[in-house]
Amino acid sequence: MSATDDLLANAERYAATFDRGDLPGPPALGVAIVACMDARLDPAALFGLSEGDAHVIRNAGGVVTDEEIRSLAISQHLLGTTEIVLVHHTGCGMLTFTDEDLAARLEAETGARPAWSAHAFADLDTDVREAMARLRESPFLPSKQIRGFVYDVTTAALREVA
Amino acid sequence: MSATDDLLANAERYAATFDRGDLPGPPALGVAIVACMDARLDPAALFGLSEGDAHVIRNAGGVVTDEEIRSLAISQHLLGTTEIVLVHHTGCGMLTFTDEDLAARLEAETGARPAWSAHAFADLDTDVREAMARLRESPFLPSKQIRGFVYDVTTAALREVA
Repeated sequence: MSATDDLLANAERYAATFDRGDLPGPPALGVAIVACMDARLDPAALFGLSEGDAHVIRNAGGVVTDEEIRSLAISQHLLGTTEIVLVHHTGCGMLTFTDEDLAARLEAETGARPAWSAHAFADLDTDVREAMARLRESPFLPSKQIRGFVYDVTTAALREVA
Repeated sequence: MSATDDLLANAERYAATFDRGDLPGPPALGVAIVACMDARLDPAALFGLSEGDAHVIRNAGGVVTDEEIRSLAISQHLLGTTEIVLVHHTGCGMLTFTDEDLAARLEAETGARPAWSAHAFADLDTDVREAMARLRESPFLPSKQIRGFVYDVTTAALREVA
């Protein structure tokens, strides 16, 4: 039994009692959340989301690249969301290395060097601010209701980045 | 009150009873999930995840681009995950337009044409298979335990793509 097999058994239990099959595609709350992939962060539990409430976009660091702009543009233009919530968190792995560290490590371990950047960052607040600026500057996001936060993985407190 | 303000009130309630502040960074189950951002899909509820269990990576469509390879490479090399679970779903918005449709629409609405592709797809199973192939071929993912699924948003059933 792999861990995936265990997750599939849980999914069968979820389906057995599922009764929300009539939800529309556009998120009920009109919100899109961009958060780190970190296992300690559960955006649905944190924000009290039910199925159908909000788009959730996640990646290593909760960074904003063209790929997140793509998802957010689809979210706003095609599915009507108007608010964006960014979440970085304390103890993030992205604080522990540089882009060059990761590229060198991957090259040493695999023989190949990635064409992509790791998007590591040295300061949580600075990266949240830069990500918010990137969203504000994007021509593809008509709604600019954007707020950014740092989540504390030890206390679960959410602190807004001004 | 914005919808975001409501979510922040929920987050305060979550923090008030939070008692899992000692979780390690590496996911306990060694699993990384790549799923669509769709609001109707809650990976933690579906797979029975608790805080600390798994990395969750999400975007429009649950597609695999270099940005998802970046997150997965960090997940495997730095945080020890070895299994990847891909989840697309029925009723996905990505089935309803082409890359050119979205580019033309954004250009008409904003005056700018995106440099990025929308990564739309015409068939769920085909896109899951292509995404799995992309992960298998990547030199940056040492573990190739990869399984792909289509989630039915009306029944919550999860169907494996062979």
